Amino acid sequence: MASEIPTILVGRKPAMNYVAAVAMQFNAGSTKVALKARGRAISTAVTVAEIVKRMLTGVDVENISIGTEQVGDPPRFVSSIEIILAKTE
Amino acid sequence: MASEIPTILVGRKPAMNYVAAVAMQFNAGSTKVALKARGRAISTAVTVAEIVKRMLTGVDVENISIGTEQVGDPPRFVSSIEIILAKTE
Repeated sequence: MASEIPTILVGRKPAMNYVAAVAMQFNAGSTKVALKARGRAISTAVTVAEIVKRMLTGVDVENISIGTEQVGDPPRFVSSIEIILAKTE
Repeated sequence: MASEIPTILVGRKPAMNYVAAVAMQFNAGSTKVALKARGRAISTAVTVAEIVKRMLTGVDVENISIGTEQVGDPPRFVSSIEIILAKTE
């Protein structure tokens, strides 16, 4: 189910780059956009969601979930977040 | 309502310090504990919640909310997160 939602992976670029990517997805007709981030980028993902909420009218946070993922070799655990943004109108 | 829940403010210390603080709150009889963090510490708060979920049996994430707060003078905006941990049994 979640795989049908366009997903933007938030990394080390400035938050505004991801805000633009989210805006483009909604302009292209998406009703939902997922933001995913791991480790330090989690803070950036929250900032992106907050800016989107303020800049795009009719878009709000629908759901937030956190988890743990294994990355690298040898594997180590990093925290992750998924924020679902959705059109409310 | 939220003010009745013991709150742990997550900052720059290692995640394990906050995990210990959460464990102490639950051991003292609390059924809910709130983690709050701003800016860069948001990632740490998510990590603390994930470790608590794994280490303390019967404790799970009940709710996650994000927001924006004004700090400093001159005021600037920082993102914030609140994670509610609750005993499920």
